[in-house]
Amino acid sequence: MEIIEHVKAMRDWSETQRREKRRIVLVPTMGFLHEAHLRLVREGKRRGDRVVVSIFVNPTQFSPNEDFGVYPRDFERDRRLLEKENVDVLFHPSTDEIYPAGYQTYVEVDRLSRFLCGGHRPGHFRGVATVVAKLFNIVRPHVAIFGEKDYQQLQLIKRMVEDLNLDVDIVGHPIVREADGLAMSSRNAYLTPEGRRAALSLSRSLRRAAWLVERGVTQARVITETVRAEIEAESLATVEYVTLCDRVTLDGIDEIYDDALLALAVYIGKTRLIDNTILKP
Amino acid sequence: MEIIEHVKAMRDWSETQRREKRRIVLVPTMGFLHEAHLRLVREGKRRGDRVVVSIFVNPTQFSPNEDFGVYPRDFERDRRLLEKENVDVLFHPSTDEIYPAGYQTYVEVDRLSRFLCGGHRPGHFRGVATVVAKLFNIVRPHVAIFGEKDYQQLQLIKRMVEDLNLDVDIVGHPIVREADGLAMSSRNAYLTPEGRRAALSLSRSLRRAAWLVERGVTQARVITETVRAEIEAESLATVEYVTLCDRVTLDGIDEIYDDALLALAVYIGKTRLIDNTILKP
Repeated sequence: MEIIEHVKAMRDWSETQRREKRRIVLVPTMGFLHEAHLRLVREGKRRGDRVVVSIFVNPTQFSPNEDFGVYPRDFERDRRLLEKENVDVLFHPSTDEIYPAGYQTYVEVDRLSRFLCGGHRPGHFRGVATVVAKLFNIVRPHVAIFGEKDYQQLQLIKRMVEDLNLDVDIVGHPIVREADGLAMSSRNAYLTPEGRRAALSLSRSLRRAAWLVERGVTQARVITETVRAEIEAESLATVEYVTLCDRVTLDGIDEIYDDALLALAVYIGKTRLIDNTILKP
Repeated sequence: MEIIEHVKAMRDWSETQRREKRRIVLVPTMGFLHEAHLRLVREGKRRGDRVVVSIFVNPTQFSPNEDFGVYPRDFERDRRLLEKENVDVLFHPSTDEIYPAGYQTYVEVDRLSRFLCGGHRPGHFRGVATVVAKLFNIVRPHVAIFGEKDYQQLQLIKRMVEDLNLDVDIVGHPIVREADGLAMSSRNAYLTPEGRRAALSLSRSLRRAAWLVERGVTQARVITETVRAEIEAESLATVEYVTLCDRVTLDGIDEIYDDALLALAVYIGKTRLIDNTILKP
């Protein structure tokens, strides 16, 4: 596995691969890898000839009060995990390499940034769209793979790619869960044993929502209030939002007629977790 | 000359040229072509193997109160002019092709958008950066040529290309002037004969500024006030701004130590004109 730290070297590598007609797949990550990341990598191996994994904890997608400084990092462990997966390139640029002095250009996906997490993390999706646009221009992948746990991020990137005429296929990968239902996340590392138990209320509440819909419940309010109550029964949990919305535009809906996204964000103590599911009426 | 109206066809054409190792040059325009545009095209012929000229009056760079609706258009004349210059492709997409329903992604160059014209045309440079990023992704040129009359636009695009890691060489072309000094512009078509005479005060005032600097004047205030007075001596002219600034960052300066940009925007009646020069102390 090649480790590349500089934009120019990364671009040259990709240029060579493209000239040799290799199909390049990019898996963008913030590192501290877990099984869900490795699934994206394996999906990448199936979809192309060369897999690039980027590890970059992107400062512009964290608000000043968020956990950028303490976001978990373990480069050596990440490197070993990716080596075992036969990844071709680990792209690991410094912050200065991505945002050099004088940097001032940002990409904004207007409407899709305002809903769900966007309402609670001002500037977050601007940072996401910007760094992903940059990674696409540097790595020039044919395909990029994103997890569906960050469902809003996935929709926003699809929209950005279409709007800015970027030539990349965006592939969403289903949420990967622990045996007990908890969606995998690097931030799960923050949880205490009690928090870990309380965090199960997220996936449990989503299953309950699906159960309600199977039984003919269609009113958004009934569904979101049930989910909220299920989570708030845990004393460690504080709901940030529970929203039922169109799965593409993310516009809120009052009633389910068609497949819809149920998405939520919850604090377990100080740890912010997200989860979601598609409800099919 | 091939006329291409669709994004997909344009992209396919470029893909083919790139595969055949042809160097593609893009000259982005809003049409209603004049001699200055044709000079950009000829510069393009020198710098590459294939020249693409885009004609697209970009709605997102006009404020609601501006002249988008009445901006001069004459496609047949433009087509004939470009045919004579042996342009390879005229890319002429519809508004819906560039901004389809649901469009919502914008590129912003933060600091460089705030100065000069940016302060007076809110959203203008967001529209410029967005459409140029899109054109680069659609046409995939190796080189793109912009006139220095829109000096701020040129700096902003250079910055965007560097910041977003776009792989395009940006070339600025010196301002092309009529024999009497007026900078060529499609908007000159709006001028009455009296307005045309009053508009000469712009280039005349820039020459006077250069004359002052040659004689050792270094204070920005003295220079800009002289320029302003020269222009305002014309009863038809209303100065929007006269600014002396760093030629790269566009930060205002109080005194000239190094090459600096003197830029101005003036209304002649209802017609807004811009002009600029580099002053060398």
